[in-house]
Amino acid sequence: MRNFKLVLLYDGTRYHGWERKQGLDTIQGRLENVLSKLCDAPIEVIGAGRTDAGVHAKGMVASAQMETNLSEMELLRAINAHLPADIALREIKEASPRFHARYRAVGKTYCYTCYDGVLKPVFDRKFVTVLDASPDLEAMRQAAAYLVGQHDFKSFCGNPKMKKSTVRTVDRIDIVRKGSRLTFTVHGDGFLQHMVRILVGTLLEVGWGKRSPESMKALLEARSRREAGFTAPAQGLCLMNVDY
Amino acid sequence: MRNFKLVLLYDGTRYHGWERKQGLDTIQGRLENVLSKLCDAPIEVIGAGRTDAGVHAKGMVASAQMETNLSEMELLRAINAHLPADIALREIKEASPRFHARYRAVGKTYCYTCYDGVLKPVFDRKFVTVLDASPDLEAMRQAAAYLVGQHDFKSFCGNPKMKKSTVRTVDRIDIVRKGSRLTFTVHGDGFLQHMVRILVGTLLEVGWGKRSPESMKALLEARSRREAGFTAPAQGLCLMNVDY
Repeated sequence: MRNFKLVLLYDGTRYHGWERKQGLDTIQGRLENVLSKLCDAPIEVIGAGRTDAGVHAKGMVASAQMETNLSEMELLRAINAHLPADIALREIKEASPRFHARYRAVGKTYCYTCYDGVLKPVFDRKFVTVLDASPDLEAMRQAAAYLVGQHDFKSFCGNPKMKKSTVRTVDRIDIVRKGSRLTFTVHGDGFLQHMVRILVGTLLEVGWGKRSPESMKALLEARSRREAGFTAPAQGLCLMNVDY
Repeated sequence: MRNFKLVLLYDGTRYHGWERKQGLDTIQGRLENVLSKLCDAPIEVIGAGRTDAGVHAKGMVASAQMETNLSEMELLRAINAHLPADIALREIKEASPRFHARYRAVGKTYCYTCYDGVLKPVFDRKFVTVLDASPDLEAMRQAAAYLVGQHDFKSFCGNPKMKKSTVRTVDRIDIVRKGSRLTFTVHGDGFLQHMVRILVGTLLEVGWGKRSPESMKALLEARSRREAGFTAPAQGLCLMNVDY
């Protein structure tokens, strides 16, 4: 048995998220089918995390144990040849038997892209969230400064039944405008369900003047999802990188 | 009656080309439906040319006569609001009554994009043509030099029943590599059916060593479609601009 680290890109538009679900088309399901056929045995893939339905990735990491004599290059070619056009394997490397894509992950980078131009974004329309109004960047940056650090992010957790700790460290929220595209780059040690999307939705509400930057402090203390902003749509979100 | 010039962008992936066809989903058909509803009268749209099924545009020009009291800005907003997400109106300007998008066009720029990287192009896969082998750029540029100028392009015409003149002037074929993306930018006074796609297919065959650059001279003289190369797939082609 050899243990492998896989790095994947995907256009999540037509998938029901990363996680395998009976009867639904998912990235994990697709990947496991390809690996299982290749190895002629059922292969289980472990993802660094679960991206929601419609979320994209440029650097999702997974691990899988496989019995195969193929080289890394042969595996890369064979797996890509069998994956659909909207999922690509960027690299596959043999890893230590103890490498585990989820347990060993120590950080993740997400990028969320909004578009507030006049012209409709025809060519990247599936990868951006169109805004009706332009938010105030400076207000959003001030708000983001309150959110950076180690906090209990329960107000930003989409799972009401979350039993485990909701404390996470977010060490970077960069908000950059390039033309009509606004990107939120968020790095942290881990993220709760919908956390990046709720962070972005809340920051947008600050940018639209519906909340003050200073209100972020009370919002963190409230530990209540109802106090935070809307969940920004999945299509603007992309998992960029996982740190080990 | 006011005459308007319209500039459009579209992702042609799911359309049966520009031209209205009974029972088929086309760009012209979609646009005419929107304008006709807006004006409460049947509106005919004249395109600068006809893009094939699956071809994209970033600068298609059309003209249309409409009876409306709306301003250009109001028209821009209303039309975009009713067009689907993969078609956008970039601008609409009132034009002289004599402006005609097809008859007044004096030049067009097309861009054809190929991809020859190892990694599958997940995010722009619908806008590039994937090549199995990397072509020799220098050989293609040498071949392109034979094609630039005023020639009878009958060998590069996809319509076997073409009765009118097949003489056209192509004054620019630029071939540029950026990473794994190769772009062919072609400018001319007009193009025959499939002409850009056959030009690109033929140049690729030169780039793969199947034809010599010098053979372009005899190919032009042959005036026979069978002598030219394959028709490169529609998805890599984009109409960039129309000159008036």
